[in-house]
Amino acid sequence: MKGKAVNCKRKTDKLKPVVFQHNRLKILDQTKLPHRICYRNLENYQAVVKAIKTLQVRGAPLIGVTAGFGLAVEAIRQKSRKNLKAYLTKVAEILKQTRPTAVNLAWAIDRCLSTIWVKQAKIPEVIINEAKKIYEEEEKASWAIGEIGANLVKENSKIVTICNAGKLAAPGLGTALAIIYIAHSQGKNPQVYVCETRPLFQGARLTAFELNQAGIPTILITDNMIGTVAEEIDLFLVGADRIAANGDTANKIGTLTLAIVAKYFQKPFYVAAPFSTFDLTKPNGKAIPIELRDEKEVTTIQGRLIAPAGVKAYNPAFDITPGELITGFITEKGIIYPPFAKNIASV
Amino acid sequence: MKGKAVNCKRKTDKLKPVVFQHNRLKILDQTKLPHRICYRNLENYQAVVKAIKTLQVRGAPLIGVTAGFGLAVEAIRQKSRKNLKAYLTKVAEILKQTRPTAVNLAWAIDRCLSTIWVKQAKIPEVIINEAKKIYEEEEKASWAIGEIGANLVKENSKIVTICNAGKLAAPGLGTALAIIYIAHSQGKNPQVYVCETRPLFQGARLTAFELNQAGIPTILITDNMIGTVAEEIDLFLVGADRIAANGDTANKIGTLTLAIVAKYFQKPFYVAAPFSTFDLTKPNGKAIPIELRDEKEVTTIQGRLIAPAGVKAYNPAFDITPGELITGFITEKGIIYPPFAKNIASV
Repeated sequence: MKGKAVNCKRKTDKLKPVVFQHNRLKILDQTKLPHRICYRNLENYQAVVKAIKTLQVRGAPLIGVTAGFGLAVEAIRQKSRKNLKAYLTKVAEILKQTRPTAVNLAWAIDRCLSTIWVKQAKIPEVIINEAKKIYEEEEKASWAIGEIGANLVKENSKIVTICNAGKLAAPGLGTALAIIYIAHSQGKNPQVYVCETRPLFQGARLTAFELNQAGIPTILITDNMIGTVAEEIDLFLVGADRIAANGDTANKIGTLTLAIVAKYFQKPFYVAAPFSTFDLTKPNGKAIPIELRDEKEVTTIQGRLIAPAGVKAYNPAFDITPGELITGFITEKGIIYPPFAKNIASV
Repeated sequence: MKGKAVNCKRKTDKLKPVVFQHNRLKILDQTKLPHRICYRNLENYQAVVKAIKTLQVRGAPLIGVTAGFGLAVEAIRQKSRKNLKAYLTKVAEILKQTRPTAVNLAWAIDRCLSTIWVKQAKIPEVIINEAKKIYEEEEKASWAIGEIGANLVKENSKIVTICNAGKLAAPGLGTALAIIYIAHSQGKNPQVYVCETRPLFQGARLTAFELNQAGIPTILITDNMIGTVAEEIDLFLVGADRIAANGDTANKIGTLTLAIVAKYFQKPFYVAAPFSTFDLTKPNGKAIPIELRDEKEVTTIQGRLIAPAGVKAYNPAFDITPGELITGFITEKGIIYPPFAKNIASV
């Protein structure tokens, strides 16, 4: 069930977090970053489930894409199976349940699953095609978000971000970081404060790694420093895992705290996300399921206890930022400003 | 120069963080908590400087007390020295410079130093007496703060705190935690959310340890979770390292972020501190020096890199919470409410 580790090396320039080639799926194991570059082949859906649950692959758009390819891999493996359609429907359900908060996962799986009502011999091919299409769409969306959002970045802007909404989180350049990459390529010299993002340090491990590789000036801060650096920040820029119809946004734990601080200092707070992250079936943030993860992610680091044995911890992986704290949504179709309920629905 | 480790054991009930007995000074090495209980003898002022700089001993009231005893230890060692007064004046200056933010340090040293204008043979004794007096005063202040502050705690209150303002930070019961201990002893069943307090985890390592030992219900959270738990919090309660004349307060990095979140959710935000923490020579927070510590405290944990090699980090040990975000100061002389400039001056 464990994805086989292949091709582990120390460094490389062009990291693709998910690769589907010659009917094989491999992922960059993000739990090993930034110290080791380690790809894993995912040979069946169980390996995909495990890779998503353990955050070897993470980022809302990316887990959608990966799960789509996971369904394709399983369809290839089982192509001669009796009742393949019923089987894949079951597998799709399991894949959808691996992580509850990011809507992109269910959305991508549902798209892939909707293609299977063809002759059995054709099923692997149609799923592969749909998964590739999703990948390409997300890649294009990433570039569009980057181009559109970069208009908000002034010369020498100081930008703060949390978690990782970059090349490791989505096909292409990512979402929030796509904007920074494009602004950087335009010579605007953005400088980025990266919140380390406890408990799993995606900011320290992944975002600082990406930005360092790209030569973008980066300063790592602990999450609790946001109050003290906010005054000199020009732009708060985050990704999203699910956006409700009224603009309430689920994103990595800590995002709400950032948004409250941005409001206090009257700084613009933007959420960058493709349309696959919007869920208009959810009227507001209260309807979005929040994943609770193991307390050990808080009480231990790399297997070592950092608190007294037996202490209880709370570990919601996401929080909900109310739309009232959000300046705008940067999407591939343009920037959505308030009133969100009206303007999201009319895109 | 390194304090000698003595009496290391796994657990004990009544931990005193600083002990001065038979003219010898020993401290509990707080960098080893919660996993090891390890006392160190501090035999000269250099060992005291090192213990304070490396946070073996920390907490604003406690470093004041420790430095006072440190001056006493040096006076005992050097009692026959020529020019003892000039020498101790120089040592006092070095001790005062070990950490810049907490005013209690300079305040305690200045008090001890002011006693030395007696016959040389008497100098050790007068310093010891003054240092003991400071210890006892701080201990009494701690109890008074606890009693006064406990009036603010209702039954089953949910309280959030950051860093460690408990028995490990001050003689007696501490400051913020003194209130929780007294409320607990009154049967009010307080429940405490402890911010882990990056980068050095004083919340996870020290506060969770203290509260666990006292049987007080404790939930550890990462600092960035404050936005998501604030709605159910009844009381924000923190210590302080220096309070300016207008109520602006230096305290552990992260405090400002908590205060902003408290304001957003309209929750009471109290600072608990003895009068030794007030510095009326500083008109406001801008005049308080903020200690910048080594970037490695952010980029490594227990010696292991958690970020890409070479990434820059920012590491201010404290931040300034403006008085406008503070509901009141809980002191040994009562609670001070706004307008702070007027009410602090008139205590």
